[in-house]
Amino acid sequence: MFAPVYFDYNATTPVLDCVREAMLPYFSQRYGNASSRHEYGRAARLAIDTAREQVAAALGAHPTEIVFTSGGSEANNLFVKGAAACMKPGTVAISAIEHPCVREPARELARHGWALREIAVDGAGRVRLDDFDAALAKQPGLVSVMFANNETGVVQDIALLAQRAKPGRGWFHSDAVQALGKLPLDFRRLNADGVHALTVSSHKIGGPKGAAALVLDKRVELTPLIAGGGHERGLRSGTENVPAIVGFGVACEWAAGRVADAAQRLGSLRATLERGVAAQGATIFGLGAERLPNTVYFAVPHVDGETLVGQIDRAGYAVASGAACSSAKPEPSHVLMAMGVAPELARGAVRVSLGADSTEDMVNGFLLALAETLRRLRGLAALAA
Amino acid sequence: MFAPVYFDYNATTPVLDCVREAMLPYFSQRYGNASSRHEYGRAARLAIDTAREQVAAALGAHPTEIVFTSGGSEANNLFVKGAAACMKPGTVAISAIEHPCVREPARELARHGWALREIAVDGAGRVRLDDFDAALAKQPGLVSVMFANNETGVVQDIALLAQRAKPGRGWFHSDAVQALGKLPLDFRRLNADGVHALTVSSHKIGGPKGAAALVLDKRVELTPLIAGGGHERGLRSGTENVPAIVGFGVACEWAAGRVADAAQRLGSLRATLERGVAAQGATIFGLGAERLPNTVYFAVPHVDGETLVGQIDRAGYAVASGAACSSAKPEPSHVLMAMGVAPELARGAVRVSLGADSTEDMVNGFLLALAETLRRLRGLAALAA
Repeated sequence: MFAPVYFDYNATTPVLDCVREAMLPYFSQRYGNASSRHEYGRAARLAIDTAREQVAAALGAHPTEIVFTSGGSEANNLFVKGAAACMKPGTVAISAIEHPCVREPARELARHGWALREIAVDGAGRVRLDDFDAALAKQPGLVSVMFANNETGVVQDIALLAQRAKPGRGWFHSDAVQALGKLPLDFRRLNADGVHALTVSSHKIGGPKGAAALVLDKRVELTPLIAGGGHERGLRSGTENVPAIVGFGVACEWAAGRVADAAQRLGSLRATLERGVAAQGATIFGLGAERLPNTVYFAVPHVDGETLVGQIDRAGYAVASGAACSSAKPEPSHVLMAMGVAPELARGAVRVSLGADSTEDMVNGFLLALAETLRRLRGLAALAA
Repeated sequence: MFAPVYFDYNATTPVLDCVREAMLPYFSQRYGNASSRHEYGRAARLAIDTAREQVAAALGAHPTEIVFTSGGSEANNLFVKGAAACMKPGTVAISAIEHPCVREPARELARHGWALREIAVDGAGRVRLDDFDAALAKQPGLVSVMFANNETGVVQDIALLAQRAKPGRGWFHSDAVQALGKLPLDFRRLNADGVHALTVSSHKIGGPKGAAALVLDKRVELTPLIAGGGHERGLRSGTENVPAIVGFGVACEWAAGRVADAAQRLGSLRATLERGVAAQGATIFGLGAERLPNTVYFAVPHVDGETLVGQIDRAGYAVASGAACSSAKPEPSHVLMAMGVAPELARGAVRVSLGADSTEDMVNGFLLALAETLRRLRGLAALAA
């Protein structure tokens, strides 16, 4: 396979060597069902217990607060639908820039008697405190604001928001899928601030696809999405995906130990990248807001994002246009729309997200390829004019 | 790790070498998110397309009828809750011996305005046709009868049941998790008989945990359990677990090509096993019914099943007491209760389930270990008396 430079770590990440090696024995040797009581089952259960401790430790949570799911989308759906099912319909308040796997369940609640309140963001993609407070005035039963946005990388001040929401007595959830491994996360402290649940996912931090967790304050009552054998304290039935959970645990341990270093290293690469794209006439989204150290989201005026991404892919760099998860729809990003970006400019959006294997050379190579691609596209445009 | 003989294939199976090898490149090389449009994403999408074709081919279905999920429990919940959410509350009819991941969602419907009708089975574990017809008279909107039972291995005549249900115009689902790889399955023919959906799972046939499918007649409208990015035709959002899906595809191809041979080979081992346990005074459950060729479910009167399984584990044989998935609860099996087995005898239930690596020598070794264990337990009982 032709191997382009991978600059799409917010979509997914390569599984780390140490993670893959840790998983391997659980496919064909220690392959037991963790519910079985014989030797194979006990080995599987032990592996899950260890992974639960690793995930909890990386997040400053207690192992009993970790509910394993098959992915971040499932964990977000579990929180939104599961908590709502234990309440009388009221108001669900979410930010206008949530991932579809928070937004769609919230919309489903709105079809079943709930009022859906979307909280506005400012031009830099930050939740507007005045609108957040206005949403709180509706006394929402559920509030969900993502920790860091998958497209822009903009980081919300979740502790501050949770503190403001705390007197309201609703449950406060944050989708922290993009934050894990890129920012320090401390559930114990966040919980004290009023955060009741966090979603984190394995495949965004060098772990395998197929494992994620809802970190959950045990006071929150949830109806499971998947009922059956009663796994995960009855909150998520189904045979545990042992190798994936083992890999998630190791990836958490690996990532937690490197957050500070990674942030510094990636932040420096990002600075190079941003200077370079700005010099080529790009608008960078979310400038002025605190952002993930690995993410640059930009558009070059009058250049279509899809086209640019396709050309750059051919030049050997894998980057994203809009969010990968909703890339079936070529509409301009709802995140950029919420930020008040003109649709024309939003259609040019390109996301570069860096990770563990990214280097300065790769960033410089990308900037050269971008310049070359823009020169060619502009030449074609001039010919057509 | 000490490696006992594994006789618990109905709980889970070792991942086949060919499956593991097929999965490996998708962890750290072709690791893309299948929704991404660059080279890495396209490679992942292609792999999923191929797996979808392999699963469909093994089941006599069309690739567009395959909805990938994270496991059998999810697929069963998706069918029961997802179909019900698109209907006015009516009657849901399920057999009395369904797996908890069908029974619990059905009970949840019963808490939301549906009538739950459980269909009785006879002493051999077969659905009673008279009671099935009586349930049909309630004009159920949903009917779910498992293809083969995980504990007893008893196989239902799903084609016959579906034909009887067909004039009723409800949706007919069958949990075929234990049937796949052990019996030939032809969705095209079953669909013509009136079966609208089948659940199958990867980790029961030598594939990895973390992948399964709902095979679905496209006329069935479903509300997704997991909403979001719109994956799987909008029926199951979430980043696809590419390696697990790839492994599931290869396992399906492998299993489908060997069903007839495996059935003959395992059937012969089962006969040896049954003669042996019967000679030691065991009652075999489901005798007289058509059963999976790999499963023997028995009890030795006055011998506790948990104790027996623990002793046999120490002697080097991994077998199950009751169903692994619900082994957190030490109640007698609901399957045996539905068959009218006395609770005392049911508490002695032990399940031996054979698979690809099982041999005649292993079976004979097990029978010797069982005899030795029973001799010791009876000696202890005599001492205590």
